[in-house]
Amino acid sequence: MMKTVLSYSGGLDTSVCIPLLQEKYDSEVVTVSVDVGLPGEELKEVEDKAKDLGVLKHYTLDAKNEFASDYIFKAIKANASYEGYPLSTALARPLIALKVVETAKKEGADALAHGATGKGNDQFRFEAIFRSKAPEMKIIAPIRELNLTRKKSIEYAKEKNIPIPVDLEKPYSIDENLWGRSIEGGVLEDPNVVPPEDIYEWTKIKIEKTEFVEVGFKDGVPVTLDDEELSPMSLIIKMNEKAGAHGIGRIDMMEDRILGIKARENYECPGAVSLLTAHKDLEQHVLTRNELRFKQLVDSTWAELVYMGLWTDPLRTDLDSFIDKTQKRVEGCVKLRLDKGSCRAVARDSRFSLYSEEAASFDDENIDQREVEGMLKYHALQASLFERKGKQ
Amino acid sequence: MMKTVLSYSGGLDTSVCIPLLQEKYDSEVVTVSVDVGLPGEELKEVEDKAKDLGVLKHYTLDAKNEFASDYIFKAIKANASYEGYPLSTALARPLIALKVVETAKKEGADALAHGATGKGNDQFRFEAIFRSKAPEMKIIAPIRELNLTRKKSIEYAKEKNIPIPVDLEKPYSIDENLWGRSIEGGVLEDPNVVPPEDIYEWTKIKIEKTEFVEVGFKDGVPVTLDDEELSPMSLIIKMNEKAGAHGIGRIDMMEDRILGIKARENYECPGAVSLLTAHKDLEQHVLTRNELRFKQLVDSTWAELVYMGLWTDPLRTDLDSFIDKTQKRVEGCVKLRLDKGSCRAVARDSRFSLYSEEAASFDDENIDQREVEGMLKYHALQASLFERKGKQ
Amino acid sequence: MMKTVLSYSGGLDTSVCIPLLQEKYDSEVVTVSVDVGLPGEELKEVEDKAKDLGVLKHYTLDAKNEFASDYIFKAIKANASYEGYPLSTALARPLIALKVVETAKKEGADALAHGATGKGNDQFRFEAIFRSKAPEMKIIAPIRELNLTRKKSIEYAKEKNIPIPVDLEKPYSIDENLWGRSIEGGVLEDPNVVPPEDIYEWTKIKIEKTEFVEVGFKDGVPVTLDDEELSPMSLIIKMNEKAGAHGIGRIDMMEDRILGIKARENYECPGAVSLLTAHKDLEQHVLTRNELRFKQLVDSTWAELVYMGLWTDPLRTDLDSFIDKTQKRVEGCVKLRLDKGSCRAVARDSRFSLYSEEAASFDDENIDQREVEGMLKYHALQASLFERKGKQ
Amino acid sequence: MMKTVLSYSGGLDTSVCIPLLQEKYDSEVVTVSVDVGLPGEELKEVEDKAKDLGVLKHYTLDAKNEFASDYIFKAIKANASYEGYPLSTALARPLIALKVVETAKKEGADALAHGATGKGNDQFRFEAIFRSKAPEMKIIAPIRELNLTRKKSIEYAKEKNIPIPVDLEKPYSIDENLWGRSIEGGVLEDPNVVPPEDIYEWTKIKIEKTEFVEVGFKDGVPVTLDDEELSPMSLIIKMNEKAGAHGIGRIDMMEDRILGIKARENYECPGAVSLLTAHKDLEQHVLTRNELRFKQLVDSTWAELVYMGLWTDPLRTDLDSFIDKTQKRVEGCVKLRLDKGSCRAVARDSRFSLYSEEAASFDDENIDQREVEGMLKYHALQASLFERKGKQ
Repeated sequence: MMKTVLSYSGGLDTSVCIPLLQEKYDSEVVTVSVDVGLPGEELKEVEDKAKDLGVLKHYTLDAKNEFASDYIFKAIKANASYEGYPLSTALARPLIALKVVETAKKEGADALAHGATGKGNDQFRFEAIFRSKAPEMKIIAPIRELNLTRKKSIEYAKEKNIPIPVDLEKPYSIDENLWGRSIEGGVLEDPNVVPPEDIYEWTKIKIEKTEFVEVGFKDGVPVTLDDEELSPMSLIIKMNEKAGAHGIGRIDMMEDRILGIKARENYECPGAVSLLTAHKDLEQHVLTRNELRFKQLVDSTWAELVYMGLWTDPLRTDLDSFIDKTQKRVEGCVKLRLDKGSCRAVARDSRFSLYSEEAASFDDENIDQREVEGMLKYHALQASLFERKGKQ
Repeated sequence: MMKTVLSYSGGLDTSVCIPLLQEKYDSEVVTVSVDVGLPGEELKEVEDKAKDLGVLKHYTLDAKNEFASDYIFKAIKANASYEGYPLSTALARPLIALKVVETAKKEGADALAHGATGKGNDQFRFEAIFRSKAPEMKIIAPIRELNLTRKKSIEYAKEKNIPIPVDLEKPYSIDENLWGRSIEGGVLEDPNVVPPEDIYEWTKIKIEKTEFVEVGFKDGVPVTLDDEELSPMSLIIKMNEKAGAHGIGRIDMMEDRILGIKARENYECPGAVSLLTAHKDLEQHVLTRNELRFKQLVDSTWAELVYMGLWTDPLRTDLDSFIDKTQKRVEGCVKLRLDKGSCRAVARDSRFSLYSEEAASFDDENIDQREVEGMLKYHALQASLFERKGKQ
Repeated sequence: MMKTVLSYSGGLDTSVCIPLLQEKYDSEVVTVSVDVGLPGEELKEVEDKAKDLGVLKHYTLDAKNEFASDYIFKAIKANASYEGYPLSTALARPLIALKVVETAKKEGADALAHGATGKGNDQFRFEAIFRSKAPEMKIIAPIRELNLTRKKSIEYAKEKNIPIPVDLEKPYSIDENLWGRSIEGGVLEDPNVVPPEDIYEWTKIKIEKTEFVEVGFKDGVPVTLDDEELSPMSLIIKMNEKAGAHGIGRIDMMEDRILGIKARENYECPGAVSLLTAHKDLEQHVLTRNELRFKQLVDSTWAELVYMGLWTDPLRTDLDSFIDKTQKRVEGCVKLRLDKGSCRAVARDSRFSLYSEEAASFDDENIDQREVEGMLKYHALQASLFERKGKQ
Repeated sequence: MMKTVLSYSGGLDTSVCIPLLQEKYDSEVVTVSVDVGLPGEELKEVEDKAKDLGVLKHYTLDAKNEFASDYIFKAIKANASYEGYPLSTALARPLIALKVVETAKKEGADALAHGATGKGNDQFRFEAIFRSKAPEMKIIAPIRELNLTRKKSIEYAKEKNIPIPVDLEKPYSIDENLWGRSIEGGVLEDPNVVPPEDIYEWTKIKIEKTEFVEVGFKDGVPVTLDDEELSPMSLIIKMNEKAGAHGIGRIDMMEDRILGIKARENYECPGAVSLLTAHKDLEQHVLTRNELRFKQLVDSTWAELVYMGLWTDPLRTDLDSFIDKTQKRVEGCVKLRLDKGSCRAVARDSRFSLYSEEAASFDDENIDQREVEGMLKYHALQASLFERKGKQ
């Protein structure tokens, strides 16, 4: 009998996959739940649910620290944003998939499975890792391969006594991890409907007055909040709370999915939005203009690759080499002003600043304004020649 | 005797230029004040001041409509932003310089003059136009050529009975036009000082509750606010008021000036920030992913060129050709949510949407999820080959 | 009974499609052969072959002039090159597909068919046009849908008395049109085998001594050869002969196909290589540096889009708007030196040159070398600041 | 008395600088000649000439190995080309300038001097290094500061008994080093004059028959020629001879100088052209498509920075980090075909090839052509939607 390791979230689709794998694929099932930032109680429920469905074994793997240090912090250094979306789900998928592969190798499994449908982004992200890291294993995507619609999945779940999530009346599809929370489906599918307030969990306004927070960076990543040193994971959690309490980090957008379908997406990313604001402000202070311009291309390519699930394309680590080199000087403090949905940098300081010294060396004693005259002659030289030639 | 046409704002530097041109350059002076969005009373004062200083003639030219239609609207189509700055002053300079050249030609003048120093951006923007459009005329930059410091200018002004602006105690250097207001100097020169609240004029919060405004676009430019048709100029003024009342549009940044000097800049651009937010949201709805990606490069290059004063480089109009072609479909409505410093798009509609029809044609009846399986095999093909080769 | 219009080349695969469509798809067949640069006799043979196979009707459509003017000339303006390949086959496919769609509409057909396999690029190019221009029609790809291998196709052809091409001993897959000839397959599949001399038809060296040819351009496209005015088609044919006689235009490369497969490709493109050399040289003479830099991005994106079969993505015509704007000044003459495989520009002249006038205006009388001193101070300002800060 | 270290080539301009520094600047002079690939006898002459002109001390520094390993090899990895020019002079200047700075520090000098004029590129390249690496030292550029024309320099040289180069009748300005030879001036200044044959030294055709040479790469740089291991310097010298004997490497172009002036330039770079051809061919074999696309941007930015003299901008080493990461797999052999001015790759092999294995895994047994059908539906999805919406 075949042994399959399934990436398991406890949701409807992955729950339905367990009996499907057992019955339609004639396989034993090992489930893996990778914790990238869910509340602890929930993980216990997920485990119980898997066991009720008769899995051979269930693994709950805590990857929160790894996710924070090796994924989110890379995303911060890359100012990661895909069309305005700071990559929460997209960033976690490769880590989850890698853990599934590791477990499968440990278990001597024959196949890897996921519960993604044939329409979305996640199938690409799972399978890119599966094919790269375990080309010898079979890949099974039961929902897609059996062409199950949501309706059919529910019917099948009922048949198998799988508990249907109570929030079917609030029919949003939710995904959340340390770096953000995404909400799609239901009325949100119409791009012209204003999102109802009840979709938000992380960004309900709890504090009405303006607050400031100072983020300290070293090597391009945040290490302190208001001078308190924090682990990567703790810092992100704290920043989610702090910025979330001011309603910061709501995103409402039309997004181009991997397949080319435009979809309406809503996100809550208070930590991501505020930390990226601070990070970009600091870069603007310490990197040369040439570096800033080119890093924009590097950053947008990084985000595009990761969104597309191409975490294992060597270009990603090539880009990381560039990024890491620039981040050596991204060190210092940025003061953020948090205020009812708005987050702005209002002060910044760094020993690598390219500003301060210039102030000193270009005062009136040291510079003769007349020196730039030649520069002005050449500045638009070709534009001027063009004007004259055009008149011929 | 030589005749010089001077771009005249009524401020200290350009006022000092009048007697300098008369005495040190032995020239008659014609002054030109180009109105790109100043209050009417002020323009009268400017004229009187010029006449008191003995100019041969003074021109007050109303270019507000032209600025709105031919400059700001081009900037909207290009999502113009230089490092986060929506180009208010930078955008107006070429128009002002062109008006000065036109006047000089009409007046049969020998020289063109401006009051910019040898340290800033404006000298480049003025002179690029002057050299392109009137290569036969002499260019005079008295402040730079006589290497005047601020202190020396004030001394000279006193000597010549030129009124010193009363706001010397609030020593900010201010520039404003329809598209924004910039504030620099004084304590703001220290990047680590939080800007005092009193620097703001346009973005004092007057409305505390959430408001919505619907911006209607046609050919890539805004034509209605909440269904009311407005001229370009009126629409911009109204949007400045509306968004400004919610404190939207404050920008605090380190900026790389043309010369490569990093400078701390503060801006208030309520209209620019809100209209650009709406415009980008609509583009995301109607342009293909390929168009969106490439237009990012076009847009950032457009902003860079204009910031640098290279309005007359033919690349600018080349880029406009690309942009105008894409904007034919940027038509529809975007609903903005305005709230205490925060401005977000929350709904959008367009007859050119690439969303709606896809929703219809990819429902369960029409698509078999299994069809994408082949695509998944190829998606990360080279990444997988790389992994296998790397292991040799 | 269904009626299908098939893009027909007379080769093995498309010939096999005729009985397949008749028998397996129960359809009447109308064949269309689009002439984009094949010898005339061959087209008659193709027609006879189609009729022998019992097609309802056969169309031979001469699209050579259209191909030259509306496709190749656009490619010249875009310096079209995909990884070094000047896009011969890729450029003709959309035109052929459009003619097939036009014919199908005229014929009131139900379906569109092509003979491409499921491994190559052509299926993407055909179907992108089919889906864009005739979404209401069915698309049939018999070879792919019936999963026929080359071996099975030959068996089936024998069974149906379809003449098998005699060149099966020279097992190269050849495609040719006005803009180039491609050779793949057989021993060439090994990237480490030097191509045998007998694969070349267009670039056998016939002239051993150096020759010069002067190409005249207007609006970015070639209009004269050695001062003789020629139609687009005639000019291309003549340039293929002239440059081909010197062995110019051989290309041997690893190419990334649409699916991500790397394939070894050989091309002969004497006209393309020489005309593109001349065109790029002239652009370098008349466009500003800013235009040249940005046009590189435009050009490589254009080639990528067309290679991918995305002729109908609106980005392609957006890019054309940019390109056409720049090409207004690409006018003048370039002298090429042709010599045994080598083609170089050695002289150029244009009334829009940005060179000549500058020579005049920057002689010793007009420029004081000392003027650039200020510029030198600023040129590497940020780099210098970086060095000093790094030492802290 | 001041002590100045002068970068000394032995040519007219730098020779004239010696008495100028002594007399007009009242300075002792130390001369430094950095050997980046000149014949040995010449260096002795240079030294004698300096001593005859009364310098305090003369240094001849052999930097050929350093130039080959640390500069040229970086350029190969970056496929360095500025508008088609492989950066010979531009690449050597920072190294020469660094050696001058080192010598000045050792000598405890007060100033650094070079003989470049105020019109060219070299002043930027020298002074960017001088200002970055020795901001405390004075920079002297006698030719520019005294505004000397060529004519005045010759007069002054005669006056001072400085030998005038005999080649004044062949009035070309020549610069050469290991990576290439540049020729400008005289009749070549007219872009429409075909270069006379006598300007060439390195690319006179000596071998008429076709030859092959196999270049072996490791970590992105050439290490063997026809299986013979060679030091970086020897390999480059040998390749210059080999490819030069076939007339390979002549470049004739309009070049945009740093100041924006277009200039007609001629180069002979046989080693550069052939080694870059081989290197690019190998990259195409081993890098993923995503890597190849992005590396094009990296490469062109690298060349632009180095041409501009911005060797010390941190962006340059940031880009090197990206490049070095990609080059780990650029290992293997490329066979070049050398033939009368033409150099092409005709075979390639690498253990990191992304080709070979794909061939194995996608044969008829393993792939079902039907699998790509879904992919075709999505490939041009947005283009199709665009067509349909456009028709509304």
